[in-house]
Amino acid sequence: MKLVKLAALLALIVPMASFADDQDAIDYREHVMKTMGEAVAAMALMAQQKVPADNFALHAQILAVTAATAKSAFKEKVPGGKAKPDVWAKWDDFSKRLDTLAAATADLAKTAKEGGMTAAMPKMKDALSCKGCHDLYREEKK
Amino acid sequence: MKLVKLAALLALIVPMASFADDQDAIDYREHVMKTMGEAVAAMALMAQQKVPADNFALHAQILAVTAATAKSAFKEKVPGGKAKPDVWAKWDDFSKRLDTLAAATADLAKTAKEGGMTAAMPKMKDALSCKGCHDLYREEKK
Repeated sequence: MKLVKLAALLALIVPMASFADDQDAIDYREHVMKTMGEAVAAMALMAQQKVPADNFALHAQILAVTAATAKSAFKEKVPGGKAKPDVWAKWDDFSKRLDTLAAATADLAKTAKEGGMTAAMPKMKDALSCKGCHDLYREEKK
Repeated sequence: MKLVKLAALLALIVPMASFADDQDAIDYREHVMKTMGEAVAAMALMAQQKVPADNFALHAQILAVTAATAKSAFKEKVPGGKAKPDVWAKWDDFSKRLDTLAAATADLAKTAKEGGMTAAMPKMKDALSCKGCHDLYREEKK
């Protein structure tokens, strides 16, 4: 009886915890991807010596923290926005790539925190392998 | 003589460390402000229960780390973009507001890390006082 009550309670709670609306899910993952884009753009200005690199380690940290949010931002199967259906059709590959991104950007952030941009530079190419994933999983139109 | 050499060396180095181009400085601070905007938008979707709040503490951390970059992003006097000239004419006030933002968002991120969104909610209004500063220092046109 207690288990039945628990199940009934969960049935009430679980839908509240899922996405209320498809557009909200799309908006959320776009906020995540744009945050990464802004961090990379800031770091690129520094790598090109266009602005001082004082904040490089902080932007690397922002990128790493954001990358850590990406898998759960995409986990609900909600096609739309720029995400190709393959995000979910090939979830094993896609999510593995997000794990790799999270690990590589965390390593980049750690290196930048310890040694600044100069130390982090050799790791940037691997950490910022955006294109590999975008080519496969992002619609270029719209 | 050594001091003269040092001064000559500094004269060579210092300009390299400053902003190479006004548009780059504007682009950089816009990346900073947009990063904050994306973090706040993600947190707002969670506060409105439109998406799960699992990543709330991470977005609060992103906001706090970004806020910590803002003062140096604006420190060079480069009018343009959406920044009103008062940013630099009233630098004492503007920079004090950025210090307050950095402290409030750091406190918000700490609270969210320890107690999740529910614990952080009462602090959101104070931490996200974007409008107070935008009304004074941001051009709404363009």
